[in-house]
Amino acid sequence: MQRYKSIISYDGSGFSGYQVQPNKRTVQSDLEAVLAKMHKGEHIKVSASGRTDAGVHAKGQVIHFDSPLPISEQKWELALNSLLPEDISVLSVIKVDSLFHARFDAIGKEYRYVLQLSKKRDPFQRNFSFLYPNDLNIEAMKEASRFFIGTHDFTSFCSAKTEVKDKIRTIETIDFLLEDNFLTLRFVGNGFLYNMVRILTGTLLEVGSGKQRPEEMADILVKKDRRFAGKTAPAQGLYLWKVFYQ
Amino acid sequence: MQRYKSIISYDGSGFSGYQVQPNKRTVQSDLEAVLAKMHKGEHIKVSASGRTDAGVHAKGQVIHFDSPLPISEQKWELALNSLLPEDISVLSVIKVDSLFHARFDAIGKEYRYVLQLSKKRDPFQRNFSFLYPNDLNIEAMKEASRFFIGTHDFTSFCSAKTEVKDKIRTIETIDFLLEDNFLTLRFVGNGFLYNMVRILTGTLLEVGSGKQRPEEMADILVKKDRRFAGKTAPAQGLYLWKVFYQ
Repeated sequence: MQRYKSIISYDGSGFSGYQVQPNKRTVQSDLEAVLAKMHKGEHIKVSASGRTDAGVHAKGQVIHFDSPLPISEQKWELALNSLLPEDISVLSVIKVDSLFHARFDAIGKEYRYVLQLSKKRDPFQRNFSFLYPNDLNIEAMKEASRFFIGTHDFTSFCSAKTEVKDKIRTIETIDFLLEDNFLTLRFVGNGFLYNMVRILTGTLLEVGSGKQRPEEMADILVKKDRRFAGKTAPAQGLYLWKVFYQ
Repeated sequence: MQRYKSIISYDGSGFSGYQVQPNKRTVQSDLEAVLAKMHKGEHIKVSASGRTDAGVHAKGQVIHFDSPLPISEQKWELALNSLLPEDISVLSVIKVDSLFHARFDAIGKEYRYVLQLSKKRDPFQRNFSFLYPNDLNIEAMKEASRFFIGTHDFTSFCSAKTEVKDKIRTIETIDFLLEDNFLTLRFVGNGFLYNMVRILTGTLLEVGSGKQRPEEMADILVKKDRRFAGKTAPAQGLYLWKVFYQ
């Protein structure tokens, strides 16, 4: 038995998220269907660094799985890509120690949230960014974002549905890249709670549109109550960009 | 009755082309369905500058239609966008003389063909460019493209299915834009035959990959036989970029 670590990318538009759900098309079920095909119908479990929701994309999701097949790393990449649907792509496959775990060994993640700043809707972007037609004060958003840097209890910035108890996370970087009319928010941290990047983005948009002042971010963190933060920004702007390991 | 000229953009991935076909989703049928809704069920015919095939995109398709409704240009744009599906977008609507015709008055068109030069497939590009994994001699392609500039009989470069008799067209420009790993071929001319841009692109790819020499383009033009040109490049790389009027 050999454990493999693989970096994959997927267009989330056609999936009901990463994780297996009955009667839904998910990334995990497509991956496991292909592995079953390669292993004479045997179920091979795929573990990811974390779930992504319906419509959320991945540029660098990391998974691991075990297989007894005597296949080289390069052949794995070719075989998986030839069997997988076109909206999932395997970027690399490497052999790893059997103790490696895509989720438990991850020490950090980078997410990006892409906003298209335009009054006209763009049919080519409808699944790949969030169209924001109003003016934004990006300086105010940058100022607000500084309140999130460091180690905080992010209870106010995660879905009330979350079952995770420990809501303390460390955000290392939030930066803003403006290119043409696309504003990309880049979040790097040691981990993110359920919906956390989308709620942070939604809250920063309230600051950018003048509905909240940057200083209010400190109060929202202290409140530890989801109702004080902004709306959850829509799924199609979010990309799991990279997962970091030691 | 007022005639309107409108510039529209669409992601061709979800359509069986522009033109109405029974039991198929087409751009024209979606446009006419929305106009019928706005005119109490009355059929309002939409005329375009030309058809686009299944999977082909438009950044600047031009249409015209007639309506008795007393609506301002700006309101037309808002109304159509609010009723149309997200993969069609109306970029502008203006009032025009009742003699204006989107097809007959067009004096030229710009098409672009987008190639992604990469060995790795990209799930975000599968519907929006043609993945070309092999090396390309772009200088040879440029040299070959010069044989097409000017006025020629393009019989060899159009689908044998074409019913059009006159196959003489004038190409003003073919240029090559290389940005990151995307190579875009830009074609400007007074008109293009059925599949002409895709066949020119497929033939230029044969030159780029060393299967044909640039000078052979002159012979292919003279042969006036589709079988001597290259393969038709796939639909998803093609964009109707702009339509020119006097």
